[in-house]
Parts: sequence; structure tokens; C-alpha cells
Amino acid sequence: MIRFENDYAEGAHPRILERLIETNYEQTPGYGRDEYCQKARELIQKACQAPDADVHFLVGGTQTNATVIASILRPHQGVISAISGHIFSHETGAIEATGHKVLTVPSEDGKINAAQVTELVRLHHAEAMPEHAVQPGMVYISHPTENGTTYTKEELTQLSATCRELGLPFFLDGARLGYGLVAENNDLTLADLAELCDVFYMGGTKVGTLFGEAVVITNNQLKKDFRYLIKQRGGLLAKGRLLGIQFETLFENDLYIELSKHAVSLAMRIREAFAAKGIAMRYDSNTNQQFPILPNTMIEKLNQTYSFTMWEAVDETHSVVRFCTSWATKEEYVEQLVEDLRKL
Amino acid sequence: MIRFENDYAEGAHPRILERLIETNYEQTPGYGRDEYCQKARELIQKACQAPDADVHFLVGGTQTNATVIASILRPHQGVISAISGHIFSHETGAIEATGHKVLTVPSEDGKINAAQVTELVRLHHAEAMPEHAVQPGMVYISHPTENGTTYTKEELTQLSATCRELGLPFFLDGARLGYGLVAENNDLTLADLAELCDVFYMGGTKVGTLFGEAVVITNNQLKKDFRYLIKQRGGLLAKGRLLGIQFETLFENDLYIELSKHAVSLAMRIREAFAAKGIAMRYDSNTNQQFPILPNTMIEKLNQTYSFTMWEAVDETHSVVRFCTSWATKEEYVEQLVEDLRKL
Amino acid sequence: MIRFENDYAEGAHPRILERLIETNYEQTPGYGRDEYCQKARELIQKACQAPDADVHFLVGGTQTNATVIASILRPHQGVISAISGHIFSHETGAIEATGHKVLTVPSEDGKINAAQVTELVRLHHAEAMPEHAVQPGMVYISHPTENGTTYTKEELTQLSATCRELGLPFFLDGARLGYGLVAENNDLTLADLAELCDVFYMGGTKVGTLFGEAVVITNNQLKKDFRYLIKQRGGLLAKGRLLGIQFETLFENDLYIELSKHAVSLAMRIREAFAAKGIAMRYDSNTNQQFPILPNTMIEKLNQTYSFTMWEAVDETHSVVRFCTSWATKEEYVEQLVEDLRKL
Amino acid sequence: MIRFENDYAEGAHPRILERLIETNYEQTPGYGRDEYCQKARELIQKACQAPDADVHFLVGGTQTNATVIASILRPHQGVISAISGHIFSHETGAIEATGHKVLTVPSEDGKINAAQVTELVRLHHAEAMPEHAVQPGMVYISHPTENGTTYTKEELTQLSATCRELGLPFFLDGARLGYGLVAENNDLTLADLAELCDVFYMGGTKVGTLFGEAVVITNNQLKKDFRYLIKQRGGLLAKGRLLGIQFETLFENDLYIELSKHAVSLAMRIREAFAAKGIAMRYDSNTNQQFPILPNTMIEKLNQTYSFTMWEAVDETHSVVRFCTSWATKEEYVEQLVEDLRKL
Repeated sequence: MIRFENDYAEGAHPRILERLIETNYEQTPGYGRDEYCQKARELIQKACQAPDADVHFLVGGTQTNATVIASILRPHQGVISAISGHIFSHETGAIEATGHKVLTVPSEDGKINAAQVTELVRLHHAEAMPEHAVQPGMVYISHPTENGTTYTKEELTQLSATCRELGLPFFLDGARLGYGLVAENNDLTLADLAELCDVFYMGGTKVGTLFGEAVVITNNQLKKDFRYLIKQRGGLLAKGRLLGIQFETLFENDLYIELSKHAVSLAMRIREAFAAKGIAMRYDSNTNQQFPILPNTMIEKLNQTYSFTMWEAVDETHSVVRFCTSWATKEEYVEQLVEDLRKL
Repeated sequence: MIRFENDYAEGAHPRILERLIETNYEQTPGYGRDEYCQKARELIQKACQAPDADVHFLVGGTQTNATVIASILRPHQGVISAISGHIFSHETGAIEATGHKVLTVPSEDGKINAAQVTELVRLHHAEAMPEHAVQPGMVYISHPTENGTTYTKEELTQLSATCRELGLPFFLDGARLGYGLVAENNDLTLADLAELCDVFYMGGTKVGTLFGEAVVITNNQLKKDFRYLIKQRGGLLAKGRLLGIQFETLFENDLYIELSKHAVSLAMRIREAFAAKGIAMRYDSNTNQQFPILPNTMIEKLNQTYSFTMWEAVDETHSVVRFCTSWATKEEYVEQLVEDLRKL
Repeated sequence: MIRFENDYAEGAHPRILERLIETNYEQTPGYGRDEYCQKARELIQKACQAPDADVHFLVGGTQTNATVIASILRPHQGVISAISGHIFSHETGAIEATGHKVLTVPSEDGKINAAQVTELVRLHHAEAMPEHAVQPGMVYISHPTENGTTYTKEELTQLSATCRELGLPFFLDGARLGYGLVAENNDLTLADLAELCDVFYMGGTKVGTLFGEAVVITNNQLKKDFRYLIKQRGGLLAKGRLLGIQFETLFENDLYIELSKHAVSLAMRIREAFAAKGIAMRYDSNTNQQFPILPNTMIEKLNQTYSFTMWEAVDETHSVVRFCTSWATKEEYVEQLVEDLRKL
Repeated sequence: MIRFENDYAEGAHPRILERLIETNYEQTPGYGRDEYCQKARELIQKACQAPDADVHFLVGGTQTNATVIASILRPHQGVISAISGHIFSHETGAIEATGHKVLTVPSEDGKINAAQVTELVRLHHAEAMPEHAVQPGMVYISHPTENGTTYTKEELTQLSATCRELGLPFFLDGARLGYGLVAENNDLTLADLAELCDVFYMGGTKVGTLFGEAVVITNNQLKKDFRYLIKQRGGLLAKGRLLGIQFETLFENDLYIELSKHAVSLAMRIREAFAAKGIAMRYDSNTNQQFPILPNTMIEKLNQTYSFTMWEAVDETHSVVRFCTSWATKEEYVEQLVEDLRKL
């Protein structure tokens, strides 16, 4: 079985494993106070052109989302998110478990826009007694989204400006950020994100590391005591250097970008192969996730060789499925898939 | 600087790293549903002689404590712990963040006993209006404790019987469990723990893995939906097989015991070296943590070569410090320390 | 200004005030352990034909909803509610503040049906990894709903059967229950509710008392330790007898039903007056809340004499508004309104 | 049975009941937005010489403590309290249920001092990794304390100065505040409290109202959005005017002080009667609670006529008990007790 079902099926890039072996017997202080973490922080600050940013390393995405969001909101506030946002539907209520509601706005493709945020906030404050409802307290987006789509610099700039005008910290979940940065239509840089967001993170889990998410906080007001929050939510790894070593490796010599390009170029070949068969896509994704609308009969055939994710039923005979590539996807697997599609 | 300050200063046992490399490009399902986790579960069930136990793998200890405790208690209940318990003082209120109070009992050496539990529960229910106070809902102990001490089978059996009589689930934090199992005075087996506890865990982080804690649930009532809880608290690792591979390696060929013996035998040599100098120990520890009461002048001298932890001041001229060994401690470092002590 | 804007604009029925005065200097034990509470409990058990039910008195509705729901759910579970449910939109995230998500189903008129519950639960468990989402753990409905609509015995029986089949405790918010029991199309009794629900409450605040909600728990499993929960959530009134006295008065001589009839008969006159003008109603309500769809010009005119609530805009020239009657509404005010409507 | 067991055994002062009756059929806006609340706010601002203070009315003490504390702290912070503080031991973990730990300091008589706060904070920040423990985030005291003792102006000034120096909001629980303000050794005014505290409250429940606590917030930073917090925690009474009417009555014509004096002068007579018998007091209380250390034989005799609270055992033959007076205590009851004591 060849797996295209997700982007975390394999381990880590070999250079990362090598570094773990080389450093294995070094003795370092715990909890991220080591030199590898320090080095990784500096590389990320540099990549973001944000020398004053605070950079923290956590283990996983759900943990990171809950930690960041709960560090920002007061008890009566909620976080605005697309209804398709990971925090709303795929994290077992981790946000609610910290006491906060996720305030959803509709989204067809995983993205939200500045006008939606403005309107939700306006409606809240237009209520006769707004204190009877959860107050919008910040904005969460994912980029790329859960649907593989991405924001343009223009869209992100508008969202950011709106958030600042409304006093809402703006948080970007970049679990798959690399795959967005190398998309063919991308016009955003890490420096843009550092400028436009108050806090964002770059996922390692899906882009070449064993695990790990790097949180970048640029808003000074959100920096205070963040390590306490990480510890309280169970995200402060004892052997914190493992995170430092991995992110140092990712951000040396542009490995992060290189790995991202690998995944996206293979995803584009899959997209083209479907297009060549006249298969439409559910979302217009230029990143590592592709969502073809397939006849159920084709799904059955492909399932004999490939694993991929059932996304949603379209009608009685068609369904949307998800194909993922990653930094580790073997070119030959994609070639085989392209060939198989051609023959179908 | 030679580090005896903690037991998580190095990486992982080489056999674990080898296995990570060998399996690196395999594609496995995420979130612990892979064959490595399954194999590790079976090895642990076998080691515990508990074929029906549920075994789950989490990343770190604070996360594991909060997840287990919050999975058991109702909102008005608290967890009984020694006042020195890790959950009370070293986890940034992670338990309280899930809504629960830690109900402390005094302890000189990190241990609590059955009579203390009985008395605390009796006093609660003897109140005219017990509903005005937090209800004791479960018992937490660590073994070995934060002070390096251990429970005997007799003590644990009494605690367990008391808990069952009082209807309190009994939870053992075994972050350093291996170091207890190989202590010279130990008369407990993993099978005993599985029999006496309702849920316990074995730490990997401090005994040879990069990270990871293996939770063993033997009480059927506590098994239900535990994966939801792990996910909600951010402990469900995407590449869950990393945990499976590590614990499989630990529990094959008794590596876990072998590594534990290494650390404890070195700790015993340190203990003897201090004893030879007439230095008393703060706690009677047969495990990998040693707590000598040192003249501050000696601390200063030792600090030029060795790092260790300041524990508490005794008087103006003496302090308790902590020396830790681990699976990774180099014999030559201990020999050098022993020699240096002899010369002092 | 004549107020039809809500059903809590006045104080309490005079018989209640009299009783408060008569008993004012009696000394009673605190926190609901007095004889008045005991008497009120018995009257309610009798009215519900549920001699084994536990009856508790809390101060307000939001408090009651949060206390009941948090007493039932485990941390990874959520409560199913209509999207228009009070707990979802009008309680400032009180449910989320206890750690739980509200899982919404669509509703046109405030009601939900058994098929919706079945489908939501089916979809959850049909997921490949259900543990990545909040597990449905109970069902919440309001009756009458926030839209004035009511459930039939047939509908409630189906919902109850579905909940029992699925293992979901079934909770009915009866903040306005009296107004439903006297509706012309009502075929439900208190005994039916006690039989069909696992827990429900009867609001006093909107039906004749100064404040207070009476929670009736019939499911034995939900009874345990409920007083702890009330205390923890701040709902255990020190002078608990104030609640006992009020509910005793309500349930002696059928005052509760008498007051409810007063409000609903006046609401029906308002409904007819609008109907006579050809005004349609947004919801088909037989209870004390009426939702006419009015031309904005008519709203402006009425607003000179009457206060009522803006509900939602329909189009540029029409809006839905809400008129409430209550146990205290003066007949002459309704007559004046009817007359004014006739003249418009 | 004559009850001295608590200070909430009776209803409310008759003037309050009269006002409730007079206003019963008025129609007012809900949730504290009525003119009675506004009037009461102004009277309290005036009494506190704090025209810019925010004044809010909640129903009960546990609710008020949890609402205020959770409105101030960030998730990783705890509240410093005497170990005898109400929030630590008598509120069923209401504070922990909002996610926060209560950080205790020892206390013999219910009071804490500035040096204790300074030392606790110093120790926290002196840790090598303070982020592994809960950060002290504010200070809670009660005045009078649970032991009837009171702070002097000098003591409160020092505590306040220390809190401001350390950046810790200072919160005073005045559930029995009136009884402190009229104590013979009192040198504090409401204006002093408004000056020295960041937020405090005056209890009505124990000083003449049916229920209700008036929160006074003088620190501008703590004012924001407080109504949301009240609503979320279930403390926003629908018929909010009931609170306004009661507090307006209390603060007109100094009724609050008058009632407090009544209770305290009777408590002093009880104290003297015990002193005349050579009975020592457990705490040096000048307020409405008295804690004589009685032979158990005397307790038995007194119990035939009087109810009072068992506080703690001293030795096998002596116990501390608590006698409470209140605004409602009948002089004749105290005379009878004094006479009975004389005869014993």
C-alpha cells in the first residue's frame, strides 16, 4: 500500500537524524534552555527578519493552538475561526477545555476574510446586551488551510489591518506553512508573516522533523510568561534540545524550503494527472494537499494500491478524497500513481 | 562541566536511535494506530502480566499526569498527593488548569501512607457540610518519589487496599519507575503494580528514550475513551510510532532494566563516596537520585567541575543538593567524582 | 412606557412576598437544609409524580445550565443543542467555561428532533478517528424554546427514546416551563417530563418568583454529589429557605399554573390582535412570547408607547420583534395594545 | 433552639422588605441596568469617596470570589491567600474550577502580612525555573477574617504597598465588612479600602439583605468587561433591581453601619460573659464571631438551648466553638445566654 493519506506517515529528514546521533551523548540543560534551541531561535528570527521576536518550540499542533489561544484570551472571550478550522473540528475541544468558545464564520475553502471579521465583531457590539454573548477576542487562521488553499499578501494584509483596528490579536497556524511558502502563486515571505501576525507558528511535524512546532511571537504584549503557559499545557519538552536540533537543521541551508518544494512539486504532478483525466478539484489548492472529486468506482480501484482520505460525499456516485504529499514522498510513487491514472 | 543535575541531559539509548533510522521511511498510520505501538503494548502487557490492560503512549510527564487525573475526577473532586508531589509544586498548576484541586498530605520523604489517606477522607465526610469542600476523588503517588525514596510491596498493598475500600482510584506516577524496580531493597514487580494500581505509567524520558511515557490502565472503568482525553490535552503524537518504536526497544531484551541498573549502581557508588566522607543524606534513597547534606564550602568546590541541583538550605553553612545519575551517565565521570570526593 | 420586552420586569407574586415577610425572623439552617426547602421538594415531587426524584433549588438559569451540564459530561464530551439554544448564544460561554463544547444542530423554530440527534451521533462515530472530535455526551433542549414553540408529547417521547438508546442523558431547560404546560396545544404533564427527561428544571424567575430555578433529577446516576456541584458553581444560596418558600408558594394551590395561564391568555390576545391586522408571526408560538413580523414604520409608532425586543431584520422594511407577557402583565396594558393595534 | 450558629439564619431587615413590596409591580430593565442599581452604585461610590469606582452587584460570596479572581489572573497565575481563607477551604474548589491554584501562606488568626507576600513572591522568582510553578498573580484577604479578626489601617497599608510594588492586584473579601468597620479597635474607613485595595466587596447576605454582594473596583485595569465575567459565572441576576433596592436601602441613612453595630455590641456582651467565667478565646475577635474554648461538658449543656458551631478540638476535654451574632440577633436571646452562662 502506497500512502498518500497524510503528510506525517514517515519519520524525519536524514540530516535531522544524523544530528540527533551526533549530539546524543552531549549533556545539555533541560526545557529548551540549551544552545541548540538558542541557535534555532536565532536562525528563525533571521529568516523572519524579526530579531526581537520570541521563538518557542512545542511538540504538537493541538497543544500549540490551545497554549497560544489560552495565553491570549480573557475568560469571556472567544477565538474567531473558519468553521472548517482545525481548532473547531479536529482537536477534541482542546480550546473549549481551556474555557473558550470558538466563534465560527462560514468558509467555502477554509479561508476567512477581513469583512467577515469586521461583521462578526460589529454584530456582537451592536447587541443590546453584548455581555450575554462571548466576546470576540482574537482571530485564528490556518495557512495553508485544511483545504490546501492559501492567503495572498493582500488578503493577509487586510486581515491584519482589521485585527489591529479592532484590537484582536491575529494568530496564524502554520502547521503546513512551508508548503504555502513555495506554492506557485505565493507572494508571502516569513518576514511578511512576522510583520502581519501577532503570533504564528511553523510546523515541523509535516515538513521534515519527527515532531515540533516553532511559535514566533512578535507582539510584545503576548510574550510575557509564555514559558509558564507551555509548561502548564504539557508542551515543555524535558529534552528540549531535540526541538532545537531539529529546527536548527531545518533552517540551516534552507532545508525547510527545499523539503517543501519537493512535496509541492509532486502534488502539482498529481493535480495535473487528475486534470488530464477531466477530474475537477474540490478546492483550488497549490499546496501539498489535493482534493479531486472522483467517481466512487475510481476510488475503489485506486484503493487497491493507494491509501488516501475520504473527505466528503458529493452525490451518490461521487466523492471528494484527499491526496497528500510530503517532504518524504517518493517520486516513484507519484510516477506510478500518474501512470495508473493515465491508464484508468 | 560534568552534569549530575538531572536524568534527562542526554538523548536516547543508541539502540533506540538505530531503530528510528531503520524505520524512518516506512509509512505508518498516525496517532498510535501503527504496528510498533501495538507491539510495544503487547510487550508491556506481558511485562506487567496484564493482558487486558490498556496501554497508551504520551509524550511527557506533566501532560500524562493532567490527562490521567482529569480523565478520572468529576468537577468537584480533587486528587490526594504528598505535599512534595510533582503535581502539586512542579507542574505550573497543570492539574488546577483542568479544574481540580490537589489535596495535600504532609510527607517528610515524598511518601504517603494508607492511614493519611483514610484520615483525610474521614475528616472530609465528618464535616457538617462536606459539600463546601473539595471531595477527595483519587490518590496520586510517585514511585520512586521526588526524593528518591520507594514504596515497599507491603506499603503499596496497604495504600491500594485503602483506596479500594474508599472507592478512590489509585494512580502511580512512574516517571523514574525503572530506577525503583532495580533498587536493592525493592520487592515490587511490574505485575504487582498492575495488580495494585488502577492506572500507572512508566517513564521513558528519564530511562533511555528521547521522550515518552507509557500509561497502563488496568481498571476497566477508567479505560473508556482515554484516547479522546489524550488528544484533547495535546498528547496524541501525530507520528505515534516514534513512541511505539522506543518502548518496543526498551521492553525487548530487558533493556529497560539494564539501563536502570546502570544508573542505580553508579548512584550507589556516589552514595558510598559521600558516606565515606561522613556526609549524611537528607533522604534514604536507593535509586538514581542522591541528596547529600553538604557544607556550602564543599558545594562551591564541587561546582567548579560538576553541575548538580541546589535542593534546600539546612542552616547557614550547610545545604542539601541533588546528584542524579541516569541510563547515560558515564562510569568515568562517577569515578572522577568519587576520586575528587576522596581527596576533598 | 409599557414593557413587553421580557418576562422578568416585575418582582414576585404578592403571596410570595407575604410568605417572605411572615417567615422573616425565623431562624433556619443555611444552604437549603431547612424545612421550607423540604416542603417545596415534596410538593414538586408530588406534582411530578416522582417521589424518588432529587429536587434542588438554584438562583438563576445560566448557573443552572452550567451546573447541570458540567455535572454530567466527561471532559471530552459536549452537549447537543439547537443552534438557537440559550446555552449556545446567550450565556457568555458559560458552558465552554466549564470546559465543554456545545454541539449544535440547525433549527428553524428552536426545536430539534430525534433524527437530528441520531444523525449527529452516527456521523461522529462514523469518523475514522472519532477521538479527534468532541464526543456527543448529552442532549439539551428548552421547552418552551427561545422562540416560544413547544414540543408535543410524541416529539419528546421520541427524543427521550433516542437519547436512552444512545446513552445520552436528556436535559430539559424549563425556564418558561409553566407557559408551555398551559399552552392550548399542550399534551405534556410534569409527570411526563419526569418520566422522559433525566433531569429538567422549572424556572421561577419568569413565572412568579423573585428568582430561582427548581432542578428535578430523576436519573439515579446523575444524583450523586449534586450539592457539591451547586456549591462549586456559586449557586448554593446561603439563605436557601428563600428558594424553598418561593417554590412552596408556587406549588401550593396550583399558583404556578394559575400564573402561567394569566400570561398565556394575554399573549393569545396579542397574537389575535396582530392576526386581525394581517400580521404574520415568525414562529408558531402558543406561549407567552409572540414574534410578529412588522413593518419598520409600525415598530416606530408602537415604540412610542411600548417597549419590546428587536429580534431580527427580515428585509429593508420589515423586522421580527418579540412581545412577552408574564404572570404580572396587567390586563389593561394588553387591552390598550390591542386597541392601539386595531387603530393603526 | 436559639441559633448563634451563623449570621445568615434570618431573612432581611424590614425596611428592605418594605421597599421590595413598594416596588414590586414596577417594570424595570433586567440585569442591573435599572435605576435602583444606579442609585445604589452612587451611594456606594459616595460612601467610599470613590466616584470613579465601578460597582457591581452579585448574588453570593463564592460566586463573587470566583468571578473576581478569574477576571484578574492569567492561566498560569494563582492567588495568594491565608491557608484559612474561605476560597481555599470552603468553596468546593470554585477557584480551581476556574483553572487557578490558591497559593497559601500560614496564618494563626486568619490574617496574613506583607512580609509573607514578599517572601512567597521572592521564593518563586528565586527558583532556577520559576515557570515550573504557579506564578503568584494577586492577593486575597478577608476582612474581618473567618476567625473574626481584623486588619489595622497600618497593616492594610503595608499589604497594599507591597502588592503594588510587586504588581499584584489586591482583593479584599468583605462578606462581613460592616462588622469590621464598627469594631472597637477599627481605624479603617470605606474610603481607605477603596484607596488601598484594587477591588473589594461588601457583603449584604450577612449584614441585612436577603442576599447580595457589592463589588467595588477601583483599579481601572480591572474594570474592563466585568459584566461579561459576572454573566459567564452565573451571577448576573435577571431581576437585578432586587440587588439595587437592597443595597440602596442599606446605604441610605447608614443602615449598614447601624445593623453592624447591633450585631457587634451583642457579640461583645457574649465575649464579656465568657470572660467573666474565665473562658479564654481562641482568636482575639472584636467582631460578630466569637470563638470561646469550652469544656466539652459545658458545650453539651449549652447545646440543649443554643445552636452554635463546633470549630475544632483542643484536647480531649476542650473544644473551640463559634458563636455568631448578626443584624437580626434578638437582644433577649443574648441576655438569656449571658444569664445562662452566669449560672453555669
